[in-house]
Amino acid sequence: MIETDNAGRIVPVILCGGSGTRLWPRSRKERPKPFLPLLGERTLFQQSLDRVADRDIFAPAMIVAGEAHAALIEEQAAEAEGARLVVEPAAKNTAPAIALAAALLPRDAVMLVCPSDHHIGDRDAFVAGAKAAATLAREGHMVAFGIEPTAPETGYGYIRKGGPLSSGHRIAQFVEKPDRETAEGFLSTGDFLWNGGIFAFSAGAFLDELAEHRPQMAERVAESVGNAVEKAGTIRPAAGPFEGIEGESVDYAVMENTGRAAVVSADMQWSDIGNWDALMAARPGNEHGNRSSGRVDLADCRNVMVESDGPRVSVAGLENVIVVVDGDEVLVTTRDAAQQVGKFPGAQGR
Amino acid sequence: MIETDNAGRIVPVILCGGSGTRLWPRSRKERPKPFLPLLGERTLFQQSLDRVADRDIFAPAMIVAGEAHAALIEEQAAEAEGARLVVEPAAKNTAPAIALAAALLPRDAVMLVCPSDHHIGDRDAFVAGAKAAATLAREGHMVAFGIEPTAPETGYGYIRKGGPLSSGHRIAQFVEKPDRETAEGFLSTGDFLWNGGIFAFSAGAFLDELAEHRPQMAERVAESVGNAVEKAGTIRPAAGPFEGIEGESVDYAVMENTGRAAVVSADMQWSDIGNWDALMAARPGNEHGNRSSGRVDLADCRNVMVESDGPRVSVAGLENVIVVVDGDEVLVTTRDAAQQVGKFPGAQGR
Repeated sequence: MIETDNAGRIVPVILCGGSGTRLWPRSRKERPKPFLPLLGERTLFQQSLDRVADRDIFAPAMIVAGEAHAALIEEQAAEAEGARLVVEPAAKNTAPAIALAAALLPRDAVMLVCPSDHHIGDRDAFVAGAKAAATLAREGHMVAFGIEPTAPETGYGYIRKGGPLSSGHRIAQFVEKPDRETAEGFLSTGDFLWNGGIFAFSAGAFLDELAEHRPQMAERVAESVGNAVEKAGTIRPAAGPFEGIEGESVDYAVMENTGRAAVVSADMQWSDIGNWDALMAARPGNEHGNRSSGRVDLADCRNVMVESDGPRVSVAGLENVIVVVDGDEVLVTTRDAAQQVGKFPGAQGR
Repeated sequence: MIETDNAGRIVPVILCGGSGTRLWPRSRKERPKPFLPLLGERTLFQQSLDRVADRDIFAPAMIVAGEAHAALIEEQAAEAEGARLVVEPAAKNTAPAIALAAALLPRDAVMLVCPSDHHIGDRDAFVAGAKAAATLAREGHMVAFGIEPTAPETGYGYIRKGGPLSSGHRIAQFVEKPDRETAEGFLSTGDFLWNGGIFAFSAGAFLDELAEHRPQMAERVAESVGNAVEKAGTIRPAAGPFEGIEGESVDYAVMENTGRAAVVSADMQWSDIGNWDALMAARPGNEHGNRSSGRVDLADCRNVMVESDGPRVSVAGLENVIVVVDGDEVLVTTRDAAQQVGKFPGAQGR
């Protein structure tokens, strides 16, 4: 356990996992999505830290990431005073990553678990949601952020609101990615929220729930943290016990099993930027709906996004198409086909 | 005059002018369209020489080109024994270029003027057309190659056939690029041929017609050739008189004015490869109509052409689109917009 006085403040736990192949070729194994300035000049990871920079509300962040990205994090988190890095000995999905952080914190610390590769346009709404979630977490709930849906998305999981709580609702049901018709039904009822992958709970509650529903994972994490090595603010839990864990998401391992799941709803211009189409939607277009960065010439184009890190790109006659030039890779995709990008040999590292 | 015994053979005059901006970025100022292997392993220029390689029918070629491409021509024409290069002192369109060659040949030499940037799929049909044209040229006619039209093209000039001659027809009319409806009418009558930019006439007849219709041009060319310098098979007419010429095409300066215009028709799988769409049409596609060269990965694509000289190109979900990567330039265009490519700043050298 780290002896830090969080003084009742929320402890942000920033997760830096994921391969981000769907934003290939900009996103690469060695510099994945969180560490790219995809929207604005700050990277998504930096923006994640910026959102929790108010020291009256948030304690310094705990960052969980793989060894491969430790140097990037050190570079990009330089301004985030007091931030600590926990190095995952292996990529085992979100439940074990969160468990590492929980095991390193006081039991009563309220954790706010945030992916580092999402976009949130309305920071005030995020902070308000974090406060509401922390209130429920202090009351013992396991809290998910529910995003007010703006479209019948089929790429997200949904959360159905149950009975009201002090600053949110019970969770009646987690719903897997629905088909189009189902998603349209969800949107019309007003009872469904997108599962944004942001969670709040006390460290103790999380560890208790994990011990109940995934006892082996809980034991291995405890052993790994018990043998952790700390050096210059970076904590390295022991690899041996951790490597044997069967990877699982926090949704499957804990949230869908707990009896004390709650949700706070947030309308904060959220996007998971899950593919190039989503990134395009999060960027403002010109009067023709076009977005370009780099040396780009467009002729008779509508709703085209082009970005190049070097070569000039000239595009004629296209609509709803995305062109990305990055080093020795060129991607050209329709907006509709953007979700397939991760399947290209290039994105698979072949 | 060059003292060469053409022994009654046809003298091919290969023109290497034109900027070829419409095949940018593959075609560049320093290596324009004729000097690129766009169809097969030989360049279009080399294929132009290959078509006239039968020494029983054709004398060694006379190549007319600018100084900027002399080195390329020397390299690419190395196998064409006896070929001579005439360096245009300035780019003045086709009439003055042809006049240079005519003034350097015996009056009774039958010239076959060929652009070096077209594609001809059926070499035998070309040779048969050349023989028919030479017959008419020896009878004193100024002969155009008329290409049997296969579609209502609006990008070509048309020739209307008149009364029959020994191995062709008189030309009743030259028609500028027509609109779609007019072109469809032309196709249905069977009387109209595409103007393929290939011509045959005796050197003397050409010079006589030029003297009649463009006397100043004829005089300046004569003066330029009169002061030519020859060195190692390369002839450099004097720049001074030539530079003052007002550039004009052979069609405007001579063919549309002469009283002895004739046409031979040829069905020889001809294409001027005037833009990327035309080049795509001249290349065989796979079962999905796709054509790729270089490192290319396609997903859900139909009738897509991709070529890259280096970077890998990954394309998803597109139809009727052309992607070209060449050095520091990337072009993405619909087939329909391909004719606009020459207007891009990159194609304009900006």
